[in-house]
Amino acid sequence: MSLAPLLVDGGFAATEDGLAGFSAVNPETGIPIPGGYPTSGPHDLEKLIAGGSRSARELAELDPEPIARFLETYARRIESRGVTLAGLAHEETALPVTPRLTQVEIPRTVAQLREGARMARSRNWMEPVIDTAAGIRSCRGPLGRPVVIFGPNNFPFAFNALCGGDFVSALVAQNPVIAKAHPGHPHVSEVLAHLAFETLEETGLPPASIQLCYELPDVLGESLVSDPRIGAVTFTGSRLRGLALKTQADRAGIPFYAEMSSINPVFIMAGALRERGPRIMQDVLLSSLLGAGQFCTQPGLLVVPDSADGREWITQLARGFQSSPPQTLLGKRVLDGFHTALKTWEEAGAHPLTHGVPESSSGGFQAQPALYRTDARTFLANQRQLESEAFGPASLVVQAGTVEDMLAVAEGLTGQLTATLVSAADGSDDAHYELLARRLRHRAGRLLNDKMPTGVGVSPAMNHGGPYPATNHPGLTAVGLPGAVRRLSALHCYDAVRAGRLPPELRDANPNPDLWRSINGVWTRENIG
Amino acid sequence: MSLAPLLVDGGFAATEDGLAGFSAVNPETGIPIPGGYPTSGPHDLEKLIAGGSRSARELAELDPEPIARFLETYARRIESRGVTLAGLAHEETALPVTPRLTQVEIPRTVAQLREGARMARSRNWMEPVIDTAAGIRSCRGPLGRPVVIFGPNNFPFAFNALCGGDFVSALVAQNPVIAKAHPGHPHVSEVLAHLAFETLEETGLPPASIQLCYELPDVLGESLVSDPRIGAVTFTGSRLRGLALKTQADRAGIPFYAEMSSINPVFIMAGALRERGPRIMQDVLLSSLLGAGQFCTQPGLLVVPDSADGREWITQLARGFQSSPPQTLLGKRVLDGFHTALKTWEEAGAHPLTHGVPESSSGGFQAQPALYRTDARTFLANQRQLESEAFGPASLVVQAGTVEDMLAVAEGLTGQLTATLVSAADGSDDAHYELLARRLRHRAGRLLNDKMPTGVGVSPAMNHGGPYPATNHPGLTAVGLPGAVRRLSALHCYDAVRAGRLPPELRDANPNPDLWRSINGVWTRENIG
Repeated sequence: MSLAPLLVDGGFAATEDGLAGFSAVNPETGIPIPGGYPTSGPHDLEKLIAGGSRSARELAELDPEPIARFLETYARRIESRGVTLAGLAHEETALPVTPRLTQVEIPRTVAQLREGARMARSRNWMEPVIDTAAGIRSCRGPLGRPVVIFGPNNFPFAFNALCGGDFVSALVAQNPVIAKAHPGHPHVSEVLAHLAFETLEETGLPPASIQLCYELPDVLGESLVSDPRIGAVTFTGSRLRGLALKTQADRAGIPFYAEMSSINPVFIMAGALRERGPRIMQDVLLSSLLGAGQFCTQPGLLVVPDSADGREWITQLARGFQSSPPQTLLGKRVLDGFHTALKTWEEAGAHPLTHGVPESSSGGFQAQPALYRTDARTFLANQRQLESEAFGPASLVVQAGTVEDMLAVAEGLTGQLTATLVSAADGSDDAHYELLARRLRHRAGRLLNDKMPTGVGVSPAMNHGGPYPATNHPGLTAVGLPGAVRRLSALHCYDAVRAGRLPPELRDANPNPDLWRSINGVWTRENIG
Repeated sequence: MSLAPLLVDGGFAATEDGLAGFSAVNPETGIPIPGGYPTSGPHDLEKLIAGGSRSARELAELDPEPIARFLETYARRIESRGVTLAGLAHEETALPVTPRLTQVEIPRTVAQLREGARMARSRNWMEPVIDTAAGIRSCRGPLGRPVVIFGPNNFPFAFNALCGGDFVSALVAQNPVIAKAHPGHPHVSEVLAHLAFETLEETGLPPASIQLCYELPDVLGESLVSDPRIGAVTFTGSRLRGLALKTQADRAGIPFYAEMSSINPVFIMAGALRERGPRIMQDVLLSSLLGAGQFCTQPGLLVVPDSADGREWITQLARGFQSSPPQTLLGKRVLDGFHTALKTWEEAGAHPLTHGVPESSSGGFQAQPALYRTDARTFLANQRQLESEAFGPASLVVQAGTVEDMLAVAEGLTGQLTATLVSAADGSDDAHYELLARRLRHRAGRLLNDKMPTGVGVSPAMNHGGPYPATNHPGLTAVGLPGAVRRLSALHCYDAVRAGRLPPELRDANPNPDLWRSINGVWTRENIG
């Protein structure tokens, strides 16, 4: 099988390791897609790390303008190849071309790249802090080393290691990227690599600023993240793999930022159920099954009063799940993992309200949407199993007999990306809301009211993060600039450094009218003096 | 031996573990100081964690005013007992009462507490970010769990787990503190615990907001930092101990912030040497030996041109070291570690320029200031050993034959807290400066010009941090508000949360005229609308 080249050390080159390659598989049919991709070994790895290291200093010393131009030009190139890219992504992931890929994900990705360009140009990611009396000035700067990005399977564009949010953050902070593409969508990654490389050449960035490998044996992934020449690592994926990589990066003292798993509890209060049960049901159904349930923020846990209203609501929701068509998951491992998770739920005392196997199958990775039910006592007694994420179109309903049950479920939850509270507009749930919100606030990065958690708005105020084990840093976010850049930058302090030797952003004259600086405790865009 | 009580779960109580206690030792004489202190075991530990957990939510929901009052009142109490505290600290650490303790460290500590009070009151640590169009608002908030602070031996006040910088940061973010005092100065910590507890009672903070233990077997320290009820850990101390604790905290997914070791290289350029060699020598001598060299930012590595000027300068510096009186180190382990480190240097090819053993000893932990010399080639060939920190009054001079040698030494350094460049005022070193600064920028948290690195100014622009292994997060600082609070807070995002349910800091009306908020990309103290 002839294998696609890697993007490595400033150009496209064949793998030097001679390991067996792989092909993508069409999830709709289970049939391999023509085209082979390399599994990299130690030789490729060394070239990637050495190339990234060489380009790191050069990139760190660039003016922001070429970086901004790179991000803009790359965005335009992706946009102009959008239909082709969406077609390839659909073939590799089964995610719908419309609206998902062409109308939502690619526009969002392109918008993120453009926002990165604006951020690079304004330099607001540097967050300059100036103390004129003490003669101390500081700002964020590049790490001086490459950033390794492990992309996930579920967002072939918006979180792709070659064009997603972490890619943007790494480049805004002027760090080279070593992208470990997800092997689920190698064609998409290959096309992106060509677009990125053409753009590097056009905009004059160091050619090894962006590199790509497609697949690595587990043990080599662990070597990569623990190599002392690496500046930081971001990972979006499964908890098992995330923790294995984290252990190695931690051992080497390399900052590692993982987004691993979340069941995104939704608490539906009695008043809300009375007031607008059917509408809430439609919202939940849509959000749970969107993208075949393969979202980090999919509502996997629904906590509902065990009242006549609540029981009826669950019955209706189960009908909605049952009558939804089978959905195609991203790959065989996702499908297997989904069934294993449902089995774990069953063994821990949850009851299926829908049937789990599609009536017909096209030979691909189809799953029937699944709704499970348990009570608060069973949930609390078997929490470890019942809190495990079923990545795919499944949700677990916990029936809470009393307000205290609902509070106990909230109290016991581990760290989540999101927690949602659905309450009545008439104020009848307000006392209950306060008690719940107080408990959930320390257990989730993002708290929502009356709105489902899927759909992570790209906003400076967003937190796409949360307490462990959802991520491993409760204070840091993967989405939203400039916050997301904080993870991938260093704090550079200048103490009594002569004026002419300071970076432009820390000099008395502000180099950019859009740059906010904290000067003696006052945020301003003015010059000093 | 009767043992001092712990401050645990809202009051003073005897240890429940029955482990052997310990006494402080006067470093001047080597004689134990009357008074016994407990080594805590699993029962004490459980009480500390349970007490901290119980108070965490209550503290998180407090208004900032009582926290600000606590910090101010505590500062006043420490100030009013300043002479007694300095006396106790002197007896336990041999650090001079004047100027160090009464004129520098206690005033700095008290100023940090007051700055914390202002920060709590202004709420600027919360860094609110508001996106009105998206309906998303976020700010920093408490972790909802206690913070464990391991205090160091070398600052009985400014970095003490019971009143130092991390203590202030933890409380500003409304997290309870579990202080693990350094066993080198238990009397100081005991007095502080009484002052803190009186102040808790006076200001009405939850009584278990601050707790104290004196000593823990290593394995229990590791249990403490990996208990899932802990929100974060800060550690200031040795690399060996720091890494052992970090491994356990990492495994449990608990954010761990360690400041571990740094040799703080000082590069003295040829022009500067010609221009003002003797003055630089005085600066280096003072900075290297200040506090018996027991500073995190002590200049342990001096890189000097191997010229006639440079050799003469080294001879003069050696004379300065030689004629300095023996200095008393903090304890026997520090003295032993100091001698071990010097032996490591010698074995790796460094030559002593001064004699290492005091001519007379008072029976305490005295060390003779020690200056060592090597060349760039030897340094680079034995870097791991020659880069090891000799905590105490010692510096290693590396003689660099050429500018390239100096660059190679810079290039090879691991992560440092500081890097200092001493260059000529007449511009003759400027080309060399550029090359060096470019290399050092990615290897140190704080870059200095013509000024020694000891003396960490308490400023919002300070970075007391640096790349691994100096610390384990290149983007975060332990000194300087609000930056230092970022390590000990969570990012709380509110998505479509109803206006009346938002924390006051995120509502349209700004609750405090001093609170800066980023509203739709503009930093302002105004209300919305």
